[in-house]
Amino acid sequence: MATLLTGIAELTTNADAADPTATIANAALLIEGGRVAWWGPAPDAPDAEDVVDLAGRAVIPGFVDSHTHLVFAGDRADEFEARMTGVPYAAGGIRRTVAATRAATDDELRTRLAALVAELHAQGTTTFEVKTGYDLTTAGEERLARLAAEVTDEVTYLGAHVVPEGAERDAYVDLVCTGMLAATRPHVRWVDVFCERGAFTEAESERILRAGADAGLGVRVHGNQLGEGPGVQLAVRLGAASVDHCTHLTDADIAALAGSTTVATLLPGVEFSTRQPYPDARRLIDAGVTVALASDCNPGSCFTSSMPLMIALAVREMGMTVGEAVWAATAGGARALRRDEVGHLGVGARADLVVLDAPSRRHLAYRPGVPLVNRVYRGGEVLRPR
Amino acid sequence: MATLLTGIAELTTNADAADPTATIANAALLIEGGRVAWWGPAPDAPDAEDVVDLAGRAVIPGFVDSHTHLVFAGDRADEFEARMTGVPYAAGGIRRTVAATRAATDDELRTRLAALVAELHAQGTTTFEVKTGYDLTTAGEERLARLAAEVTDEVTYLGAHVVPEGAERDAYVDLVCTGMLAATRPHVRWVDVFCERGAFTEAESERILRAGADAGLGVRVHGNQLGEGPGVQLAVRLGAASVDHCTHLTDADIAALAGSTTVATLLPGVEFSTRQPYPDARRLIDAGVTVALASDCNPGSCFTSSMPLMIALAVREMGMTVGEAVWAATAGGARALRRDEVGHLGVGARADLVVLDAPSRRHLAYRPGVPLVNRVYRGGEVLRPR
Repeated sequence: MATLLTGIAELTTNADAADPTATIANAALLIEGGRVAWWGPAPDAPDAEDVVDLAGRAVIPGFVDSHTHLVFAGDRADEFEARMTGVPYAAGGIRRTVAATRAATDDELRTRLAALVAELHAQGTTTFEVKTGYDLTTAGEERLARLAAEVTDEVTYLGAHVVPEGAERDAYVDLVCTGMLAATRPHVRWVDVFCERGAFTEAESERILRAGADAGLGVRVHGNQLGEGPGVQLAVRLGAASVDHCTHLTDADIAALAGSTTVATLLPGVEFSTRQPYPDARRLIDAGVTVALASDCNPGSCFTSSMPLMIALAVREMGMTVGEAVWAATAGGARALRRDEVGHLGVGARADLVVLDAPSRRHLAYRPGVPLVNRVYRGGEVLRPR
Repeated sequence: MATLLTGIAELTTNADAADPTATIANAALLIEGGRVAWWGPAPDAPDAEDVVDLAGRAVIPGFVDSHTHLVFAGDRADEFEARMTGVPYAAGGIRRTVAATRAATDDELRTRLAALVAELHAQGTTTFEVKTGYDLTTAGEERLARLAAEVTDEVTYLGAHVVPEGAERDAYVDLVCTGMLAATRPHVRWVDVFCERGAFTEAESERILRAGADAGLGVRVHGNQLGEGPGVQLAVRLGAASVDHCTHLTDADIAALAGSTTVATLLPGVEFSTRQPYPDARRLIDAGVTVALASDCNPGSCFTSSMPLMIALAVREMGMTVGEAVWAATAGGARALRRDEVGHLGVGARADLVVLDAPSRRHLAYRPGVPLVNRVYRGGEVLRPR
């Protein structure tokens, strides 16, 4: 059955080649077979059996959150609170979540994961990536990858999150490149490394990423979060789909990104939650770098799953226009996952879209914190409210 | 019928005289006749006909939003977007909303207001103030006061928002103090003035506030938002319940507040949405000033109604602890409205409370932007979800 959404006050498709951030007013959109079959001015809309009048609301593509760490147990609210009174963020806190996650049963992890997935959906996220990295044993990383694969096609192997407590560094890197990789491989599409002071060096990171690539995985990198470092250049050199954080960049890093197919994925929730300076999105965009926005939802440095808040922060703190921020949170995320059929509403795209309780996408930044998601479609079906 | 809420992982009552920001773990709370009848450790709870197991969620008092401008038509998303690209905020934008509001019918305003009230409720706000000030004629201000009084007992007369276009300044101040005040008086509890560069001077503000006080209204002041100024000292001198904004304060302003019963109401959504420096809540609290947090929800400088976001901003940007921020958004707001029966959950308080989808109130700051309101009670009845 074809469904025509009409009464769209402002439609964002990301599908206008001349201006990817363009909108059209008083629009309609036709869904057929779970795909976008047509969009354009409402008066030109084709007939359809099922017509839904959105009564002056705005429509945008579903959010594509290309960076999350959703499979874990416990939380670190106490650590957050201490940080807000002056204790600095350190990657070592990851080990607390590792201990809690190892102690949790499959069903405990599934219940928690399902709650977070419901939370993402309720906020308009229709495609999301999930990383492993909170177990750091072969059997445990396989388990996290398997559970993540139950809820998304975009699973990332992050055995190289930190060196686990008690492990010998070189032996752990060996394991990440061999047995642990082999065990998780069936469930994952991507390999990632936390290339940062206190986590993995450039040489270790390169070895791990090459092992993943040799096993057929796409490459992603956590880089340049806590200071300048080798992550961005390494990501570009290896043809990574994305390098994530990019908070501290040199001119050479930006030039490398601009000349590459690697997306710079910015995670402003981390800077919000660790009280650090924000990445300079304006500088990246002006240099011609493709920018994505993602949540980095994780219990340590950033426990928000709100893509609308990422947009508000990008506009308030990072020099992005609303149009650029919405593009980065949808099409940008899709580029970072090298996905063609999501992140936009061109004809043929999967009909993943968010109906906002607002006449314009501008309200995502203009009305920060307000839950503005009226309805979410994924593959043409109403995902939220159920 | 008595209802026992049990399974409360963390209960905030604001009712412990020794430590007003204290919480208790594994708690229960009894509601009877719309009031709090008992609270304490779950094992000590009395029997009740109706028992609701909150399954490890946190409970806090309902938010008291003591500063909103909810009665208006139109929006100013375009102005917001321009501001984010560098155009500074100016109070003159208020005149655009005045034009739109004057043009709207009663029912158009009611529909919009009802939608915003539903939005407040969904975010846990159970008591809120609403100001007039978007018409600026006698009949129009009376209309806005009347419509606001349909949704709240806390209506504020803000004829002195700005001098309307085309009006002679002194004649307008006269009108605000006489005929306009008399017309709105039956619907309102408070008088307020925008005492700021570009709005009303100290002398004008004092005259207007004294006229309101003489008519039996409580006094509130908008002051010290855009720069240092006379607002705070004037508010203290007149015994105002609250002076709102307090972004730019001298040591003398802080000393005056500390020695007064006037609450300093901070509105960090404004600083977020106008990209201005935040008020220094730490300095105020350390000096002994009573601090409230409110949304200032309005279409110009801050179109958010999210008290959870205010808490997250207070912790991230203003040096408040989570406990202080939650207190300021509940008990602080009640002090700013001089209300005893809301803003806390002491025995006898109105049973207005928020059940969070989280084990601790810390998650309001730890999980910014995420809709964490599971259920809202007002007067012991479930307000949300309906």
